[in-house]
Parts: sequence; C-alpha cells; structure tokens
Amino acid sequence: MEELLMELLEEIMLLHKGGKLETTLKHPILCKDDLSKVYTPGVAKVCQAIADDQSQAYELTTKKNTVAVVSDGTAVLGLGDIGPKAAMPVMEGKAALFKQFADVDAVPICLDTKDTEEIIAIVKALAPTFGGINLEDISSPRCFEIEARLRAELDIPVFHDDQHGTAIVVTAGLLNALKVCGKDIKDVKIVVNGIGAAGISVSKMLLHAGAVNLIGVDREGAINRLADYERSHWSDYAQITNPYLEIGSLSDVIKGADVFIGVSAPDVLKLEDVLNMATDPIVFAMANPMPEIDPAIAAPHVRVMATGRSDYPNQINNVLCFPGIFRGALDCEATDINEDMKLAAAEAISSVIDPSELHEKYIIPDAFDPRVVERIRMAVAEAAVKSGVARKNLLVGIN
Amino acid sequence: MEELLMELLEEIMLLHKGGKLETTLKHPILCKDDLSKVYTPGVAKVCQAIADDQSQAYELTTKKNTVAVVSDGTAVLGLGDIGPKAAMPVMEGKAALFKQFADVDAVPICLDTKDTEEIIAIVKALAPTFGGINLEDISSPRCFEIEARLRAELDIPVFHDDQHGTAIVVTAGLLNALKVCGKDIKDVKIVVNGIGAAGISVSKMLLHAGAVNLIGVDREGAINRLADYERSHWSDYAQITNPYLEIGSLSDVIKGADVFIGVSAPDVLKLEDVLNMATDPIVFAMANPMPEIDPAIAAPHVRVMATGRSDYPNQINNVLCFPGIFRGALDCEATDINEDMKLAAAEAISSVIDPSELHEKYIIPDAFDPRVVERIRMAVAEAAVKSGVARKNLLVGIN
Repeated sequence: MEELLMELLEEIMLLHKGGKLETTLKHPILCKDDLSKVYTPGVAKVCQAIADDQSQAYELTTKKNTVAVVSDGTAVLGLGDIGPKAAMPVMEGKAALFKQFADVDAVPICLDTKDTEEIIAIVKALAPTFGGINLEDISSPRCFEIEARLRAELDIPVFHDDQHGTAIVVTAGLLNALKVCGKDIKDVKIVVNGIGAAGISVSKMLLHAGAVNLIGVDREGAINRLADYERSHWSDYAQITNPYLEIGSLSDVIKGADVFIGVSAPDVLKLEDVLNMATDPIVFAMANPMPEIDPAIAAPHVRVMATGRSDYPNQINNVLCFPGIFRGALDCEATDINEDMKLAAAEAISSVIDPSELHEKYIIPDAFDPRVVERIRMAVAEAAVKSGVARKNLLVGIN
Repeated sequence: MEELLMELLEEIMLLHKGGKLETTLKHPILCKDDLSKVYTPGVAKVCQAIADDQSQAYELTTKKNTVAVVSDGTAVLGLGDIGPKAAMPVMEGKAALFKQFADVDAVPICLDTKDTEEIIAIVKALAPTFGGINLEDISSPRCFEIEARLRAELDIPVFHDDQHGTAIVVTAGLLNALKVCGKDIKDVKIVVNGIGAAGISVSKMLLHAGAVNLIGVDREGAINRLADYERSHWSDYAQITNPYLEIGSLSDVIKGADVFIGVSAPDVLKLEDVLNMATDPIVFAMANPMPEIDPAIAAPHVRVMATGRSDYPNQINNVLCFPGIFRGALDCEATDINEDMKLAAAEAISSVIDPSELHEKYIIPDAFDPRVVERIRMAVAEAAVKSGVARKNLLVGIN
C-alpha cells in the first residue's frame, strides 16, 4: 500500500513537471510572409480596427475566449494561506479543466499581494485582456468585497468559484434529491453548517430557488437576527435566513430538518443528529477530504447522501459548473454572471439526469457527460439575454 | 493593386479572428483518475511541495517556461497611444513569435492604466506566475522608470524589448558592418539620431561594446553636457556621450561620421549629409515604415545600409533577439537580463554569419535561421552564469 502511494505521488509529480499548460499558435509562423501578417506591418491594421471600434476586441483578439483564473493563494484547498507560488498548480489545474471541458482558454494568475484594494485595482487593470475573471481560493471575508466591487466596476463577468460554483452544484444536486424524496423546496427545513464564503452563497442560491425555512449554523450556533455579530457578513446573513428564529447548536436546530448541507469541518455531524432529522433526510457533507459525517455511518440512515469525494456516489464537484457557465457567458459576451444565470446553470445541471433515471445514488451527472457543458451554456446564455447582460444573442438564428 | 491590397487585408483580419493564441494541455483529462491527479486531491501534494520549497515553483509550474508580454498600449508601433484593447494584437503576435521561435510560452497582458506606480505594483504582483517579464510599447520616459524599478525589485528578468531588443540587433548588425568595412568600433564616429527609449539603449550598448566617439542628436541638436535639459534622461545621456563636445544640428555633427543610426522619423537624413560622412559610411535607417532616408537614394553612396523593413537587405528586426534571450534566461533561471547578457546576445547574433559569408548586403542573419536562437541561448546563459545572475548552470554536464 505504502509503495503504491509512493508510486502515485511520483506519477503526480511527473505530471506537473514544467507545468500542465502551454500556449499554441492557431496559425504557424513559418516564413517572412506569415510574420508580416500576424506581426508588423500587417498587425497594425488589426490594432487600428480595434482602436476605431473597441467592441472589435472580442472579434479580433483572444479576449473572446480567454478567462483569467486569479488567486492570491490565501485559501488554497485545505492548505490555507500557502502563497501565490504554491497556489499555481491549482490555478493551472483549473485552467486545464476550463480547456478540457469547455474549450475555454484560461490563464492562471497568482498575485503576490493580499491587499483587497490592490487586488481590485490589479484585476481591473487586467480586464481589457480577458473575457471573464474566475476568482479562486481567496480567503473570506476579503473575497466578498473583491468580487462585489469587481462585478460592479467591470464590464466582463467576475465569478468567485468557491462561492458560486459550489452553490450552483449543491443547488443542482438538491433539486434532484428533493425530487427523489418527493419534497418541495418551499416546504423543507434546510440547515447549512459553516457560514463562510461557500455557505453564504449556497444559502442565497437556495433562497433564490424558493427555499424559505433555511438556517445557518457556525461556531456560535444558529445565526439569527436577534444576535450581534462582529462579522458583517453574518449580520447580513441573519437578516435573510432563520425566519422562525431558531437558536442553539447544530444538534438543536437539526431536529426535524429535511436537509443538512455541510461546508464546514470533519465529523461535526453526529449520528444522533441524523436520527433526529425528518423522515427521508438528505445529507450533503462536503468537507474535504473528510466529510462532516462518515458516509459509512450516515448512509444507512439517510435517504440521499452526497459528499465532495469521488469515491462515493453523488460527488458535488465544481468542475460540473465553471467550464459551462463561462462557456455560456463568453459566447453571449455577457457583462456579468448574475443570480438568474447561476440558477439557470443549476437547473441545467440537474436536468441532465432524466427523471426516470433519478435515484438516491444518482442525483448529480457525471462531470465527463458532454451534455453538462452544452446544457449549462445554452441555459446561461438564455438567462443572460433575458436579464439584459448579454451583448450577443446566441439563440438568434437557432430558432 | 487596390484589389490585391484588399484581399491581403481581408486575409490578415481572418487570421486574427478570435485571436492568434490558445492554451493547450500537456496531459489530457479524460477520466476521473486523470482529474484526481492534475486537480484535487492529487494537486495538493504539488502545492505542498512548493509551499515547503519555493524554488520548486520552477520545477512544478508553468513559471519555468512562461513570460508575460506586458503593455499599457501607449506607444504601439507607429500608432501611438491606442489603449490596451487595441494593443492586444501586437502582444499576441509577440507571444506567438516567442512560441514559434523559441518554444517560450508567453501571455499577452494589456493593462488599463498609464500610471507608472500602478504599473510597477501590478507587474510586481504578477511576478510569482512568470519566469520573466517582457515590457512592450510603453511610452517614454515612463518606460525607463518602470523597467529600472522592476529590474531592481524583482527576482525574475525584466526586459523592455523596444529599448534593448533594438539595441541588441543594431549592435549585432553594426559589429558585422564594421567587419565588412574593416573598421574598429573603438575608432569610429557614431551618430545616433532620435534619443528616445531605443536611441538611449542603442547608445549605451554600443558604448558597452567599445564605442568611444558616439554623439546623440534629437530635436534640440547634438546632446552635450554643457546644455541644460528638462528631460532627465537627456541630461544623463549627455554625461556618457559626445566626448569631444560637438554641437549643432544633425547636418553639422554627421560630418566625418562613420556610422549613422536612426531611430527617429522619416526623411530626416539628407543625401548631402550622407555625402559628408567618412569613407565607407554605414547607415542604419530604422524609422518604420518610412526610413530616415529612402534606401534607393542612400544606397549608392553608402557601404552598408540597413533598415527596419523586410523588403530591403539587412533588416534590423527585434524578432532576432527576444525569443533567444528569454530562452537563455529561462533555461538558466536567471534573475536578471544584464548588460553582459545583452552584449553576449548581440555577439551571438552576429556570429551566425561566418566571416567568409559576410557581405554589404548580409550583415544580419535570417530570423528563421535556427542557429540564431540556439546561439543566443547558450551565450546568454553563459554570460548569466559568469555575471552571477543564474540559478542554474546550463553548461554543467555539457563539458
């Protein structure tokens, strides 16, 4: 076993040697004639065309198909603040997935600063080059302000995958899990454990999808609007959740809940808590690599179980979302990825599984199913057009 | 003729559709097993290895082979300040040439700011991602401070191609032109016309290569240390040039000159000026697309003529230099591209033409000659090792 692990580790290191990406030319430059077309003097005509009409940047440069994957390396996987150089393999991996799954060209950019204002200024300055910005692994609460300011101030989509990618895939999975259980999102009691970047975004998206009785829990217990919080994102969160003002610990508020969603830490959900949930409980335990409850312990007592792990059924994996959502946003030259587009992406993911195939152990499609990206792309572009953030209508001419 | 030009323009526009570059994966991601190696959970081991030893960033990420081509779009070709979006086709073209000629991966980055301090801060923040920075088309005098500060403050090479690329190729050509004429750089009188970014860098490199009697001329005439200049780069320049304190216009100081180097404007050099030069005059007229003197007029009266144009012999073209110099710098993990490395690059370029082949119309090798990049690479890496700015010695093990 030890030997197998060493071999695997060696293989992983080898795969990373010199990085996972390279650039390639769409047209080779093999002679002076080629040179004079893709570079001086021919290129001057192309520059002039864009100088005369800035919108031509989409037609005549890589902006059309290129996303920056931007991180400051402060919240990388479970490793935390490991810095920009050590964050690179994750951003390269993300860029590789963008290309493999959705033919989006992506550039990993790891920044040597943790200053919120500086990160905002840098990404704003980088924007002319890119068709979209994927923020990644930036620690909370800075990630909220960075994303909100950039969304407001830029004319290209800005998407913090750790927040919204997770939220979209959780919503997709939950919509299908509720179908399996024959429950309606409007009626169920949902407990979200871990109110950081992902927990807040998951909660907001479920509310947008129709949830009413949703309670967030963190170290201080159930978040509620009667309490005072130092963290402004908790105060804001309390205003929109916990309508019946439940208080107490996770073990208190889990009683009678239909759904548990964990984006928190290993082993915080006890078997007793699960036994206290409503009938046909749904448990999404997404702490990685160790879930909030060991699936071997929980599975016999829940109706639908999902985790972040690839070795159990129903893996909640962001790769289901980000390639398709940017594919759709780029193709319609969207100026934003808004709430309607995110919900459309979630519904598109859940729609890939035909109702007749839905099953306790199959609520989330396979990331390699080619229908995933294509459905998200169309749904996101349609939502962009409807909500007025698309420069181009993909559907024109398709009928 | 008109029709042919329209066809050519159409072809150029088509070649630029959607940009000239794309990213590709070194290893495809075709199944969950691939995914778990290039992304989570496997990638965490790679991140941890870099977090433990930052120098591993060169081994395990694209930093090893990737250069950022950074511009603010303020001095693009002859078009001037056309902004970051319109500058993109040039930066993409440059990135394409990096890849085609030297297998260097390059990322075009056009910045939406002209503020010197902000550009410096942004490039510093971007540095962890890249193995080198190629500055491009940033207007003078801001380009001087930006490059100087970044060179001092970063541990990766920073190279402003408009200054040093031009200087290196001019020096390479001049070394060979002097051989053709049987003159020694120490003895000749050189007049450089146009004391902007390129003119200053050309002058400094020629002085580093042994030139003594070198005079710079700009709109105010011959630059000399008795005059007062508002522009500090002219005051600095006056201190190191014009040893015999010649004053007056270009027509005055060109008298008796062996070499004219123009990095200025069309038609500023008159036939009469050429006739007043020393015997076997050398004229490098590099204003683009219209040289300082029409080659058809000058050629009969000069021994060696060079221009920036591809339709005349002896084209001074930066593409001869930047791919190879970064190839060498990346391969030895250089922390800087210093004066010794630049001179080594110039000598390497000139060395490609065997003395027996040297000729008035063949002082500069063809950009597509594969020996160019390889010779520059080795010479630059050797100079980097000797001058103490290489992390790795390319020559170890080669003998």
